[in-house]
Order: sequence, then structure tokens, then C-alpha cells
Amino acid sequence: MKKNINIAVIGLGQIGNYLLNELITKKRDIELKTGKRIRVVAISAKNPNKKRKFKINKNIFYKNPLDIIKRGSLDVIFEAIGKSDGISKKVVELALKNKIHVITPNKALIAKHGDYLSMLAEKNKVNLEFEASVAGGIPILRTIKEGLATNKITKVHGILNGTCNYILSEMELTKDTFTNVLKKAQSLGYAEPGNPKLDLNGYDAFAKVRILSSLAFNKKISKVKCLMEGIENIDFKDIEIAEKLNLRIKLVGITELIKNQLFERVHPCLVNKDSYIGNVNGVMNAVIIHGYPIGESILQGEGAGPGPTSSALMSDLLSILRGNIKYPFGISYKKRKAVNVYNLNKYSNSLYLRIEVKDRPGVLSQITKQLANRKISVARLIQIPDNRKKTASIVIITHKTKEQDVQSCLKSLRSNKNILKNPILIRLL
Amino acid sequence: MKKNINIAVIGLGQIGNYLLNELITKKRDIELKTGKRIRVVAISAKNPNKKRKFKINKNIFYKNPLDIIKRGSLDVIFEAIGKSDGISKKVVELALKNKIHVITPNKALIAKHGDYLSMLAEKNKVNLEFEASVAGGIPILRTIKEGLATNKITKVHGILNGTCNYILSEMELTKDTFTNVLKKAQSLGYAEPGNPKLDLNGYDAFAKVRILSSLAFNKKISKVKCLMEGIENIDFKDIEIAEKLNLRIKLVGITELIKNQLFERVHPCLVNKDSYIGNVNGVMNAVIIHGYPIGESILQGEGAGPGPTSSALMSDLLSILRGNIKYPFGISYKKRKAVNVYNLNKYSNSLYLRIEVKDRPGVLSQITKQLANRKISVARLIQIPDNRKKTASIVIITHKTKEQDVQSCLKSLRSNKNILKNPILIRLL
Repeated sequence: MKKNINIAVIGLGQIGNYLLNELITKKRDIELKTGKRIRVVAISAKNPNKKRKFKINKNIFYKNPLDIIKRGSLDVIFEAIGKSDGISKKVVELALKNKIHVITPNKALIAKHGDYLSMLAEKNKVNLEFEASVAGGIPILRTIKEGLATNKITKVHGILNGTCNYILSEMELTKDTFTNVLKKAQSLGYAEPGNPKLDLNGYDAFAKVRILSSLAFNKKISKVKCLMEGIENIDFKDIEIAEKLNLRIKLVGITELIKNQLFERVHPCLVNKDSYIGNVNGVMNAVIIHGYPIGESILQGEGAGPGPTSSALMSDLLSILRGNIKYPFGISYKKRKAVNVYNLNKYSNSLYLRIEVKDRPGVLSQITKQLANRKISVARLIQIPDNRKKTASIVIITHKTKEQDVQSCLKSLRSNKNILKNPILIRLL
Repeated sequence: MKKNINIAVIGLGQIGNYLLNELITKKRDIELKTGKRIRVVAISAKNPNKKRKFKINKNIFYKNPLDIIKRGSLDVIFEAIGKSDGISKKVVELALKNKIHVITPNKALIAKHGDYLSMLAEKNKVNLEFEASVAGGIPILRTIKEGLATNKITKVHGILNGTCNYILSEMELTKDTFTNVLKKAQSLGYAEPGNPKLDLNGYDAFAKVRILSSLAFNKKISKVKCLMEGIENIDFKDIEIAEKLNLRIKLVGITELIKNQLFERVHPCLVNKDSYIGNVNGVMNAVIIHGYPIGESILQGEGAGPGPTSSALMSDLLSILRGNIKYPFGISYKKRKAVNVYNLNKYSNSLYLRIEVKDRPGVLSQITKQLANRKISVARLIQIPDNRKKTASIVIITHKTKEQDVQSCLKSLRSNKNILKNPILIRLL
């Protein structure tokens, strides 16, 4: 690799802008660590005149990002637009085809097109790096790809969405409603101001789970969604009841191989208050890796924000500058096998059910009968009456229950006229 | 780098032997990830006939490890003898001079001769890798050198010695004495059977702190020992009292830059029971990095044992095989500056003092007067009488106190005839 490295940054939102400033201010540091001299030669964004934290140099501004690639003599490109398709994909595709290294924090793009793009990168002998796409401040991909390279990893799980974790922590702390806490998260910049749906419904965490799976298990990215649930239906009542049971609700992403079948899922989990994961609060992310011979490894850090994300983007850049050319997903795309997906119906786990009922004699026995019919065994039952409304919350913690059975039970419960709302189901970790 | 890589393993104790087996069984996996074909061409150990977990191939055995290097056509050497000098140093030195990459878990060697050896490595354009030397199962050095490469790190601290952490956890759990728990640790293989001194007196953790400092702050390895205390004097009584105060005792290693002066220390710390570090128990290690823009990053995992250590050694090998040639300490030895060391006397902190006294009127006022004379301000005081022995334990938690003042106070307390034993001093984190 030559000594002088030309860089372009495409997309100058919060992240791109912060990164640009880092690239300019840390030039000397980078030369010290890699022997390479970097120069930002081109930038692009939708609007050059938008108000930004750090000023941009308009002399190197391009309206159309594809023109940057066509201009030639470019070594590394940062894609920070953030779409799963469209111009994001076009830029990355064209860059790789032109033998330009690509670095991106774009999880949607990698989770959707990672297989294809990594093939392009390999064929053109350049790097496609995406450390920042999962748990920004935590060097989790590098750890799996490099630090734990020869371990046999069996499971990776953790808190992968800072927005959801902040909302759940804050609801517990302030005893406030989901809607109010979401507003607060938005005003603090922890949740998208316009449409926070992709964070809240588990989509964002699921994209990260997919990337983690393919790295941990050396498989192609799965196209199936085994189980994806968000936190939109979590009520303060559930947080309150969980607390009494010494539990806490967390949105957890989990990927594991069960008999060589991939089981990927994102859903709220009831975790022990004294457990490690139960104490990862606020916007923090945490990832737990189970491997052999490593045992259990935990990594925790800030999951998002321009600072941690830029830190990850810079680590990718330094890796490229050191000449650490590697397969984007650890092994060649030719060797990564397609995945067999685990059948969710077989999944068996302890569950928390909250059922709101009319407070009448006989209702409880109706419900327990409906459970028994589906072979659902009760480990613990709490009835919390609301005398004023003449209703009651029936909370049930089940023994291990097959997903199939619980779904069919929920269906039958929905037809029970004494049940006032759709029952709430939360899985225990 | 050529396709076929010749490897030697020197030292076939628990770690070397486990590693050798990993190298043989993971050949295919390594080729998949790096495109390189490895072959173990030479091994050496004190005694070829010792009973080992995995069989060794005596056809490639050398009595004198230096002969292995002289034989030529060698690409990578693992040094797993473990001495800070002597044959360990000779092997590494000769290998580097012969342009052979060196990988070692030897913290004593690196903490003592790391500067010199990294210079040799750089001059000969080979790698000197030592990920396994600090917190085996945690890829902490790679994280600092690569994952957080452009962060400004201000402090690194954590639990770096699994033996001590196991002993302290077990004392609390079983309410047993230090001596008994140490015996148990030895029988379980968590502490050296012969001479566990280097674990217990903080020396082992201090070597790790030194390595972490030079990586985190890009400085030469310090030769000064600011503050090193072990756990040999921790009594079950202190653990018991700590528990009542909602605290827990941990041996913590800390390195930080205070006004650009290096402050390295290892000592028992009283930490909050509900804090993250307070809940890292048993043989687990944990490292917390404070940096900018990363914020606080935590890594936790098994710190020792042949499995986790081999995992780290293998990650070093794969890094070399991918052609990731880098400065052993992140930047060139030419650019790493010598350190100015912080003056311990200036250090100011809250302290726990336990003073065993004769239970007589006036003793407490004598002691508080001695404290007041040194400007030591009491935040909390507990007196626990032992009526049978006519003695009492006086436990004092101080406000922030200068090290200088506490040392001079301890000196004056030692001359107090009513005090029965050397007072116990434990620092709060």
C-alpha cells in the first residue's frame, strides 16, 4: 500500500460530520500508528448548506456521490448515508468494483446485501469493513473475527439497541408511561425524532443479530425472521410487576446454533435483576459471547452516537492502513454456507403472561383450564385485583412451554369474553 | 507472506501443550480464515517425557530451544516458558533477530523487556505479539491497539488477577480464612501449588498494568512501582465489615494519566457491592477503559487457564497470518516517550482503616486525635467490641486523605501502646 491515502466521506449527517472532523484532527496520530498519510479529498451530502457541528470544506464537495468514485485516485470511502438500498448500495457497489476500500456503519445495508457486497470486495481484493454497524463503541465484530478467531462460538446475545434500553430503564426509574419516555428519548436525541419505529419494533436489533450470526457461525446471512418483537406493547404495569418478582425487562437480541440450525431472535426478555445483563442500563449496549475454549466473554460500551460510531469507523480505517486485508465475514464468501433455520414452534421456554380480566368468580379457573388444555404448566401465579374498576391482572409465570402451545393458547384466550385485552407475553431469558 | 507457515512451540507446560493441540486440530479452520497452511515443525520443553494432557510428537522434539531457531526455515515461534529473563528472553531475542515472528503469553518478560524486544521486532520487520499476557480470554490489547486505536484513553482499570479474585470471592462466600481458601485455590489449580506469592502480592497484576499503560498511553514501559499491595493481609474480618457497609474487597489494577504523569497501582480496593466491578466474581477478569470519544468500555471474560490463553495466542497467530504487521506497542519504539511518574504522596483518596485496640476508656479519643493531627477527617466510624477478649475493632472510613498524611498517621499509630496490631488500610475505589 502506498504512503498517501485519499479518502472520501459520503453522507454528512451527525455521524459523517463527526467522522470528518476526526479524520482531519487525528491525521498525525494515524501516521504515527500506521505510517500512512491520509487526506480527505472528497465529501458529499444531500445539502451542503445544512447547519453542522463542524464546518465542511466546500471546495471538495460533490453533489453526486457517484462522481466522487468516477474521479479516480481514491483509496478509501466512508458510506454514511444509511439506507439499506438506493444510493447507499450504489455507492458501495461502485466503490468496491473500482477497487476502493469501503467502510460503513450501515447495518441495514450489510444485513440485507452483505453477502453480495462481501463477494464484490473479495473479488476486487479490497476490504469492506462495518465494525460500526453493531454496537458502535464496542469492537464486537473485530473481537469475533480476530480476537476470538479460532474459538467455536455457540451463542451470542445482548442488548443491541440503546434507544429501547434507555426507554425501558427510564420507565422503571421514573415510573412514567412508554409514550412520555419515548418523547423524552426523542428530545435527548436517543430516538429518531420522526419515525422511531425501526428501533422500537426490534428491526434495528435484528439487523445487528444477523450480522453477528454470520460472523460468529461463518454462515451466509439468513433471510428468515425467526422471532422479532419490539417494546411498543410493554406497559409500565409489566415493569412494576417484574420489579416485584426481582426481574427486569430488557430488549435482547439472541443468536445461537441449535443442532446446527440457526435460531435468531429479538424480543423483550425478563432477566434477573441481579444478573449482569439486568444491570446494563440506559443507552449502554452489551454483548455476551459463549465460545470454546474462551468460555463466556462480555463486552459493554456505548452503543450509538457519533463519538462511539466514529471510533469504530476509525478502527476500520486503521485496520486497512495496516494492510490487514481480510474476508469481510471472517472466511471467504465461497466457503460460507447457507443456513438451516430453526423451527420456532419447537422452541420451549418459561413465559410471563399478563391477562387483564373482569374480576368475577370462575374467571381464574377458566383461564387455568385453558392453559392446562395446551399443556401449559404454571410455575407461579399472582392475581392483582383493581377493586375500583372491578378488574384484575392475572400474572402467570409458566414452566417451560413450547412456542406452538403458547400461541394456540393465546388464540383461545382471545375468545374468552372475560378477558379485556390481548394478553401480554414476555419471555424469560 | 508465503502460503506454508512453519511454527515452533517452546515450552510445553499446561499452556504450551494445550496450544500445540489447538494448532494441530484447527489447521483447516486457520486455512479457511487466512489462506495459510500451518505446520508445527519443532517443539521443545524441559522434559519430553512428562505426563501431558495431549500427546506430543517426539520426532520434532528439540532439547535445546535455541537449536530450533538455528535450524532455519521457521516463520513463527511461540514462547511459553514464562520466565522474565534467562532462556525465555534468549529465545525471543534470537528469534526476532532471525526475522521470526514471536508470540508469547509471558507478561513478566514483556513488562520487563518489552521496550527492547519491540525495538528488535521493528528493526527486523516481524511481529512481537503478546495478547495472552493480559487477561487471557479478553482481547484487551487488540481492543486498545486496534479497536479503539484513535481514542484518547485516560484511564484503564480492572480485575487482572483471577487467583486473587477467586480467593476474595470465596472468602466472602464460605466465610473461611485466607489460608484455607488459598489451599482450596491451589488444589483447584487456580493458584500456583508451590509459590503463589507473585499472584498474591500484586506483582502479576502489576506486570499487566505496565503493559496496559504503555499501550493505552503510547509510552515506554515504566520502571517505577508507584503503589503495589497484595491481598495477603486481608482478613475475613475486613470482608465481613465491608459486607455490612455494602462494600466488597477486590484487588484492582489501575493506570491513569494525571496531568500527563503516569500513576500505576495495584492494591485491594473497597468497591460498591452494586457496582459493575463489585460483581465480577471468581476467576473472572474485567477491564474498564475510559476514553474519548468512546466513553466507558467494559470487557469481561476468563482471565487465565490454558483454554482462554490459547484462544489469545491463536488470535495473535491469525493476525500475523493475515499480514497485519504492526508496531508491538501500537506506535514505533522511536516515538514512544519515556514517562514522568506521578508522585504517590500527592494521591488523595477515601480510606478504610481497621485498628485493633484494647477496649479501654480513652483509646478511641487517642486515635481520633492522632487522625486529627494529620488532618484526616472521619466520614464514618464503627466500633465493634469483643467483650471476651476485652478488645475492640475500630473501623474508620475517612474523607479524602493524602497518602502522605495517612502514612505518617499510620507510623504514629504504630507507637500507640493501646493498638494491638498493625492497622489495616484498604483504599476505596
